Amino acid sequence: MTEDHLLDPRLESDTLALGETALCSVRLARDGRWPWIILVPKRADVTELHELPAADLSLLITEIALVSETLKRSTGCLKVNVAAIGNLVRQLHVHVVARDEDDAAWPGPIWGVGTPELRSNTSLPEFASEVQQALSLAPPG
Amino acid sequence: MTEDHLLDPRLESDTLALGETALCSVRLARDGRWPWIILVPKRADVTELHELPAADLSLLITEIALVSETLKRSTGCLKVNVAAIGNLVRQLHVHVVARDEDDAAWPGPIWGVGTPELRSNTSLPEFASEVQQALSLAPPG
Repeated sequence: MTEDHLLDPRLESDTLALGETALCSVRLARDGRWPWIILVPKRADVTELHELPAADLSLLITEIALVSETLKRSTGCLKVNVAAIGNLVRQLHVHVVARDEDDAAWPGPIWGVGTPELRSNTSLPEFASEVQQALSLAPPG
Repeated sequence: MTEDHLLDPRLESDTLALGETALCSVRLARDGRWPWIILVPKRADVTELHELPAADLSLLITEIALVSETLKRSTGCLKVNVAAIGNLVRQLHVHVVARDEDDAAWPGPIWGVGTPELRSNTSLPEFASEVQQALSLAPPG
């Protein structure tokens, strides 16, 4: 994250930075059970979507749609799930997750299900590289 | 719904119409365990957010934020959850749900949890009336 914005410690530990847009820190979930990207608007003390100004909301939905489209194309998934929940981690963050009928939670939601299976840190999955390209991400600082 | 757009039968049976914006059919979930609004873009054959054109996405996030803000103000809830999942009902629809620590699924997501407790049809809850006002809804046709 940029120095003027702090990432919640649990988001920090559960995700890897893919880069930053003007609005968001774009993160890959360390839990490898699903292709799973998390967008974190770099705005202090925001917990709800409606607390973002209109210009930020417009940027955010554009970035959500780009990530969704990229996940679908890259993984060939059946469905993309998009959610801003934040019951446990209150800092506003948006999940974009590729879902398939043979995945670990189908057809239910993924949050709170089972035990995370952590990705190795040695190589970025292809869908994550494609998200970096689609969003023209600045590298993590 | 307008005659040029068909609502998925399960959305039809699980929700009550509150009215329509230019983009969406705005629905109240019949399951009364949570204050729960569902926005259904009146666009044929759309299952993913990224299939909507930019103008529709911009309208949609504006409406989501308005519903979120209204639910929070009206119910005094701790957190609003927003999600487009659609693993079972494929027609694109966005949930906006008021959450509290004493609710039936906290802190987990609400989808697929327990057994619905249907609202009586006799009176609209206050938050639903306030959503109608906030979105200046045209009455259900």
